[in-house]
Amino acid sequence: MEVDKKEIESDEQVVNPWEVSAKDGGKIDYDKLIDKFGCQRLDQSLIDRVQRLTSRQPHVFLRRGVFFAHRDFNEILDAYEKGDKFYLYTGRGPSSEALHLGHLIPFMFTKYLQEAFKVPLVIQLTDDEKCMWKNLSVEESQRLARENAKDIIACGFDVTKTFIFSDFDYVGGAFYKNMVKVSKCVTLNKAMGIFGFSGEDHIGKLSFPPVQAVPSFPSSFPHLFPGKDNLRCLIPCAIDQDPYFRMTRDVAPRLGYSKPALIESSFFPALQGENGKMSASDPNSAIYVTDTAKDIKNKINRYAFSGGQDSIEKHRELGANLEVDIPVKYLSFFLEDDTELEHVKKEYGEGRMLTGEVKKRLTEVLTEMVERHRRARGAVTDEMVDAFMAVRPLPSMFE
Amino acid sequence: MEVDKKEIESDEQVVNPWEVSAKDGGKIDYDKLIDKFGCQRLDQSLIDRVQRLTSRQPHVFLRRGVFFAHRDFNEILDAYEKGDKFYLYTGRGPSSEALHLGHLIPFMFTKYLQEAFKVPLVIQLTDDEKCMWKNLSVEESQRLARENAKDIIACGFDVTKTFIFSDFDYVGGAFYKNMVKVSKCVTLNKAMGIFGFSGEDHIGKLSFPPVQAVPSFPSSFPHLFPGKDNLRCLIPCAIDQDPYFRMTRDVAPRLGYSKPALIESSFFPALQGENGKMSASDPNSAIYVTDTAKDIKNKINRYAFSGGQDSIEKHRELGANLEVDIPVKYLSFFLEDDTELEHVKKEYGEGRMLTGEVKKRLTEVLTEMVERHRRARGAVTDEMVDAFMAVRPLPSMFE
Repeated sequence: MEVDKKEIESDEQVVNPWEVSAKDGGKIDYDKLIDKFGCQRLDQSLIDRVQRLTSRQPHVFLRRGVFFAHRDFNEILDAYEKGDKFYLYTGRGPSSEALHLGHLIPFMFTKYLQEAFKVPLVIQLTDDEKCMWKNLSVEESQRLARENAKDIIACGFDVTKTFIFSDFDYVGGAFYKNMVKVSKCVTLNKAMGIFGFSGEDHIGKLSFPPVQAVPSFPSSFPHLFPGKDNLRCLIPCAIDQDPYFRMTRDVAPRLGYSKPALIESSFFPALQGENGKMSASDPNSAIYVTDTAKDIKNKINRYAFSGGQDSIEKHRELGANLEVDIPVKYLSFFLEDDTELEHVKKEYGEGRMLTGEVKKRLTEVLTEMVERHRRARGAVTDEMVDAFMAVRPLPSMFE
Repeated sequence: MEVDKKEIESDEQVVNPWEVSAKDGGKIDYDKLIDKFGCQRLDQSLIDRVQRLTSRQPHVFLRRGVFFAHRDFNEILDAYEKGDKFYLYTGRGPSSEALHLGHLIPFMFTKYLQEAFKVPLVIQLTDDEKCMWKNLSVEESQRLARENAKDIIACGFDVTKTFIFSDFDYVGGAFYKNMVKVSKCVTLNKAMGIFGFSGEDHIGKLSFPPVQAVPSFPSSFPHLFPGKDNLRCLIPCAIDQDPYFRMTRDVAPRLGYSKPALIESSFFPALQGENGKMSASDPNSAIYVTDTAKDIKNKINRYAFSGGQDSIEKHRELGANLEVDIPVKYLSFFLEDDTELEHVKKEYGEGRMLTGEVKKRLTEVLTEMVERHRRARGAVTDEMVDAFMAVRPLPSMFE
């Protein structure tokens, strides 16, 4: 499928759940993406509203436009303002042992949303998807799902408000009934159009979109939301997942269900530059949560694409090109302090700060973050994983 | 889909799980079907072997060629002869409240196989399929599944050896894992070829074949067959279900599973004549297990297509055309006594017996059979349905 797509659309940017590539190897044009997908830009007034409603500073990822698009997020806030709660749904396809920083972004942001709005959360581990797409065995997919669950739990989710599930374990019952209801509403032609499937793809690929769709409906979780069929769902995700939820939102009214709302992020760039997502097949394209301090330092120094000038003299004269500079981009994701970030951008952009200094600061920030994650993950026991993944009611999920 | 098929193949016989129609409105050519599907004719030597192995007279449906085709049934008998057991798998799509006599045939035959070989049985109620194909609600499909389970139980299955399940209830876990494994092995092109799906069909139709496939694998029932992954499966069914199991047999070796064996029946003809299956949309085309004695008598007298001649004189002279005569055909399914059947065929075929007499005898046979079924069904309690449908081990299933 990817080959077909590339042939047909080599001069277009491609963004779908399995491929992200910019036009001519350049940057992803997010404005075009918003137009094409038909979602909305997340503007400052919405961010201000979040601040007002939650009485806390909005997350860095909101303040700095990492989460930049949405669908009906304003309706979620309308309802919340009137005292109605909602629930959060996000997920991960467990295709690799270790997560990289890009993988953590939706979870860091979802943790903030859970805390700020005091709402329950379901996290889908699509081990069935990865078994089918990556040709992993069922057992290996489930093992990776459990390993990834530890990294997710390490992000700090509240076990009294969070249900993590593996599709292989949880598909069935009310969840399967919703899958069948969704499947009835989507023609093969439509699915092929939305997802770009071809006749040579296996039928498992056609069966999967309803699996990712139905956690959007509270009735898929009778142990969590009995009698709460109208509870709204908000999905924080990267924008490449939008096709699944366009489909979901399209069928929801026909099933008598609410459309899920979305809040969507841009992609975390590869160390080599901002033309797509990081690649699991190139370990030097990303920083992993398993990297040592030395790995991190080496990767940043060797591979992080710099917007600085070729010589110190030229740099002092022209300053760095912040638009393409990866260290500054990474700092804008992970350096909490707005004042310091502004300072770095100004000094570096005007040539008073050198690439080496910025990379050093980034190394400190990421090393500390990865160390913190490693300690948190090390503290996650099998019993904790079992607790998060147990099919059980969450009595204090809205408190 | 049916419209497309009819347009394309109006001069061909069509046999698939959703449509059975003979060429030019004539009879189904079963020899051609065996060639096209690539299954084998069930010959006298196999029937004799069944008699030898089970030490009892083979079922009427075997003796009279109702079950006329198979795949690897000889291998099942080889294994059985060496002391290896197998399990039976059959099913029903619960699309209507009341069953007609054609619906009972696989169950009557399966009951005989269960008794004769002393083997366990799984019965799949494909409520998910009917919800998708017949546009029934989930709830209505499940209600019909339970109602149909009562008719199935009334056929006399042994609760210590039989597991009846609704897909909506049972899909999940080991069963879902096998669905995903099967789905990975079937391309969209292949599924469209086997089942005749088109781009306008919904994706649920593409998702369903693996659901019907995986009861063929013992690992789909961990509560029944733990550690018995090599147990062979024998599927008694009407031959229109063959496409599902061609697909299943095709993928089984790639999953390291045994191919299911099949024993396949011809279709029970409509009262109006032998050009297909009976139609749920025309209540006068079939005799239902809910019909009264008066209904049965009326339907047979009014609608059963006769091979007798137009006038008594001509009939006495030429005799009946047994090839097209429905009363004789029905008697060959349900009149146990071989001697009496031969007598009727001889006397009627040579004109000494009249249509009215044959219809009278058929009315007696069917009325008694339907009465017996009604009494048996009346005795089926909700507790009994729960017992058959409980997910539980069957400790004495091979005794």
